[in-house]
Amino acid sequence: MSNGKLILLRHGQSEWNASNQFTGWVDVNLTEKGEAEARRGGELLKQEGVLPEVVYTSLLRRAIRTANIALNAADRHWIPVVRDWRLNERHYGALQGLNKAETKDKYGEEQFMAWRRSYDTPPPALDNDSEYSQANDVRYADLDAVPQTECLKDVVERFVPYFEQEILPRAKKGETVLIAAHGNSLRALVKHLDNISDEDIAELNIPTGIPLVYELDAEGKVQNPGGTYLDPEAAAAGAAAVAAQGGK
Amino acid sequence: MSNGKLILLRHGQSEWNASNQFTGWVDVNLTEKGEAEARRGGELLKQEGVLPEVVYTSLLRRAIRTANIALNAADRHWIPVVRDWRLNERHYGALQGLNKAETKDKYGEEQFMAWRRSYDTPPPALDNDSEYSQANDVRYADLDAVPQTECLKDVVERFVPYFEQEILPRAKKGETVLIAAHGNSLRALVKHLDNISDEDIAELNIPTGIPLVYELDAEGKVQNPGGTYLDPEAAAAGAAAVAAQGGK
Repeated sequence: MSNGKLILLRHGQSEWNASNQFTGWVDVNLTEKGEAEARRGGELLKQEGVLPEVVYTSLLRRAIRTANIALNAADRHWIPVVRDWRLNERHYGALQGLNKAETKDKYGEEQFMAWRRSYDTPPPALDNDSEYSQANDVRYADLDAVPQTECLKDVVERFVPYFEQEILPRAKKGETVLIAAHGNSLRALVKHLDNISDEDIAELNIPTGIPLVYELDAEGKVQNPGGTYLDPEAAAAGAAAVAAQGGK
Repeated sequence: MSNGKLILLRHGQSEWNASNQFTGWVDVNLTEKGEAEARRGGELLKQEGVLPEVVYTSLLRRAIRTANIALNAADRHWIPVVRDWRLNERHYGALQGLNKAETKDKYGEEQFMAWRRSYDTPPPALDNDSEYSQANDVRYADLDAVPQTECLKDVVERFVPYFEQEILPRAKKGETVLIAAHGNSLRALVKHLDNISDEDIAELNIPTGIPLVYELDAEGKVQNPGGTYLDPEAAAAGAAAVAAQGGK
């Protein structure tokens, strides 16, 4: 049996990436640039012959549309689809909707980076009455409570058990699984796959729209630690751009 | 408990609708007009408050993209998705790829209409070596054999049992189910829902992009025979346009 594969695909540019706002669970759309990134991601899958047999997405439009566009470009639009809130972006709490540069100016570099990259300190909670809250969003009606804020540790704790129960068994069987998700939900998964420490994960940035492939054996052990980007040069440039966010 | 709903949505204009070719299982894309029809269908769902809780699609790009675009427009992009080949368009046999007007000129009006509308006489079989065959398409690898041609009766026999087993139980529970499919797979379903005779089904045409809603009680009995189009005027004009196909 050949190795199973996980393809991690971070959604392309969203409207709030473009306007430099914290997004979290706010359901903004892709920009045209983001759509083009998704198409390019799908073309890379097709070109490299890394063809997903099933796709998992979050419940957020930017990841769902990235998956739709990429799969259409890869001629894999017809594969089974699973959506789950556990793949959602980290909830950014009271920062949701705020401009990143203004937030950095107001609270200073240290606090800004702590909110973005601290493993276990969440931003202040978002009020349920906020226009940026998901407290009354019908898609989360089955949750005991919609998050009001999350740190990366919270994302690990909701996503990794779901990954181990729902996604990993497919990879162990040799399937190729596309996971279309978000900067921080994918960082949570990579932390788990590569066994990265709580400190070191702060330095890891995942570029948008470039498929990151992990090969797993039948026991679920990663065969290529760190994964393999299908376009390594573009991935390096993209990761650097993510790290530089908060600038003007 | 409120009634369950089935929303039947025929895909918008495809490239081969535009070029007047028989399509069947050939996986052509939507045109820009078809994308606009899908958006309009989704806007109607949102406007009328008929909000799908789950979507079923065929394995063909034009139905899948119609569902994606309509659900995005209706803000229901996040609902669960199920895809199955049993919702596919009727396989058009050796007619796949041929121009409808040329076919009508070559074989005459009577034969042409028999191929399009006969309940139980399929067109000639498509050779597995044809460029328009799906014999080697990986998405159908689990089928005992990929069809080489189908009449409407064949579509009824593959789709209705799937409908009764997989889709109807959801409607009986009061769910709203979107079925994004094709002219003839939806005709097969409507024949079943409205108990239309083998003869009378020939006269039934379903317009593209306009949601057709059936309300079902807890026993699965249709409460509004014939269904309800969300835009009745556009539906009537659209059905007339389908009936007129084969002209130049």
